[in-house]
Amino acid sequence: MADRPSEFALIAKLFAPLAQTPGAFGLRDDAALLPQLAGHDIVVTTDALVEGVHFRGDDPPASIAKKALRANLSDLTAKGAEPAGYLLALSLPAHIGIAWLESFARGLEADQKTFSVPLLGGDTTATPGPLTLAITALGHVPAGTMIRRAGAKAGESVYVSGTVGDAGGGLALLNGEGARLGKNQREELIERYRVPNPRLALGLALRGVASAALDVSDGLVGDLGHIAEVSRVRIVVEAGRIPVSPALRTLWGSTPEAVVRAATAGDDYEIAFAAPSERAVMDAAKRAGVPVTRIGRVEEGCGVVLTGADGREIPVPRAGFTHF
Amino acid sequence: MADRPSEFALIAKLFAPLAQTPGAFGLRDDAALLPQLAGHDIVVTTDALVEGVHFRGDDPPASIAKKALRANLSDLTAKGAEPAGYLLALSLPAHIGIAWLESFARGLEADQKTFSVPLLGGDTTATPGPLTLAITALGHVPAGTMIRRAGAKAGESVYVSGTVGDAGGGLALLNGEGARLGKNQREELIERYRVPNPRLALGLALRGVASAALDVSDGLVGDLGHIAEVSRVRIVVEAGRIPVSPALRTLWGSTPEAVVRAATAGDDYEIAFAAPSERAVMDAAKRAGVPVTRIGRVEEGCGVVLTGADGREIPVPRAGFTHF
Repeated sequence: MADRPSEFALIAKLFAPLAQTPGAFGLRDDAALLPQLAGHDIVVTTDALVEGVHFRGDDPPASIAKKALRANLSDLTAKGAEPAGYLLALSLPAHIGIAWLESFARGLEADQKTFSVPLLGGDTTATPGPLTLAITALGHVPAGTMIRRAGAKAGESVYVSGTVGDAGGGLALLNGEGARLGKNQREELIERYRVPNPRLALGLALRGVASAALDVSDGLVGDLGHIAEVSRVRIVVEAGRIPVSPALRTLWGSTPEAVVRAATAGDDYEIAFAAPSERAVMDAAKRAGVPVTRIGRVEEGCGVVLTGADGREIPVPRAGFTHF
Repeated sequence: MADRPSEFALIAKLFAPLAQTPGAFGLRDDAALLPQLAGHDIVVTTDALVEGVHFRGDDPPASIAKKALRANLSDLTAKGAEPAGYLLALSLPAHIGIAWLESFARGLEADQKTFSVPLLGGDTTATPGPLTLAITALGHVPAGTMIRRAGAKAGESVYVSGTVGDAGGGLALLNGEGARLGKNQREELIERYRVPNPRLALGLALRGVASAALDVSDGLVGDLGHIAEVSRVRIVVEAGRIPVSPALRTLWGSTPEAVVRAATAGDDYEIAFAAPSERAVMDAAKRAGVPVTRIGRVEEGCGVVLTGADGREIPVPRAGFTHF
């Protein structure tokens, strides 16, 4: 192996404090142990992030760490699962030094406290390519209560948490757009791009309330398309109801084009879902302390459409990419 | 995101047949579900493999797939766990085409049958760098029976399955050594490098028999060093007892240097373990149908030493490793 033993011993020391849960064995075993929680199923998800594809090389290391972890926690929470731990596979180019890794580990440590989720295990390797990390997150749901993508039914309403498109706006700012935007709004949008906020409390509150859900990582319209496809229904989203933040409105305006752009931008990590009872949804949102907006409806048919104030369809370029 | 939607839709189709277990939802959800197995704990492990570091770019795609999966299954089995499923995070450079991926998927498919382990989920991304894959494998152990690295006690014996160093010999052949070696022995060693054989049946048989175990991925001596460190014991390995295959003996000879080389070569994926009862070990080996050799003993103290026929210590260069 072309790896660098002495540096990797340092890394092990750096990450061991993140693995204080008994089943992680201080990262000093081949595998971790997740004790069973009676009456619960395990929910598990993995996401890889690549420098230059999913984050910028000049993003702060703590932000990269948080974004990677939160993207996975977001997948769990959209399924109604409570995070139980995660594993980290890290492929490090030679230019990554200990200072960078310390900052990265501090980012993970802060988020582990925020979300009460321990590091269970991992693997570090060298790479001649860009920094690449894969996180696998595990969670528990009471048996049979996982919220799937399949399950939306005609007649139900469609909802999304928070606001849509902010992370896309943040990325646009980093790429040179919006020079006239004020400092506070700039920072607000860039922060949403760099450090998403998985809606953990809402995910738990939506158990038994949402008929289908996912987290919006590839754009609202494209992701709702996944629900429509797997649930075999048609989803109609009213453009005028899509929640857009004041900062994003300042950046992109309020034209139909701006709404389309917000609804196809990635990395929101809000929860989009269908549910039969608006009252149950609003109760869940209140319990979770997370704003939720009704944005459309489920019909018989297939596909997802965005409609304007006149009820006519707004054309949407086919967005994004695909997790398999 | 710079990913390639149309190709990734194809990939999803390619991998969906590998995910026939109900909890994988045909790879069409954000997360997979692993139903609980009453009275069992979950064991989980992750390994990343990088082109040019852990495999060669010209290795057959099916071999790369099998090696990645088997490396993870090997970690599970050394813990006494029965594999239950795996997730795959795949970062693909632009030059990887569908033909390569088909061959890769066929390799996984064959191994899924061999080891009765389904694909549960995954993620595909583009990368501007080398092909990188991270597999996370999950398994079940009866609660409380996971075999850890910690647990070896002074007075016990130390064992290893199969033969040691073959994969290192195979890699040496691929790098140009051993031009005089016959075709059959060449292929035998190269195959051990490309497609390791995780000792699933032995791992299960060692529950309640081994006091500490791990799979030999970074070299026998270095890996036994991990058991010694975490178990806080000294491990003495008798060089003359280390099982070496006829093919490797032909390639490297039988000098002390050759034995040291075999005992520090990586990628064996045999199980090294300590146990108090030789009779119980040999019964387990027989039940599993896997050859096991007693190679040394556990003493009070620390570290791992290799001794020659005269009982004197043979110096061993400190080997590299990667797991944190």
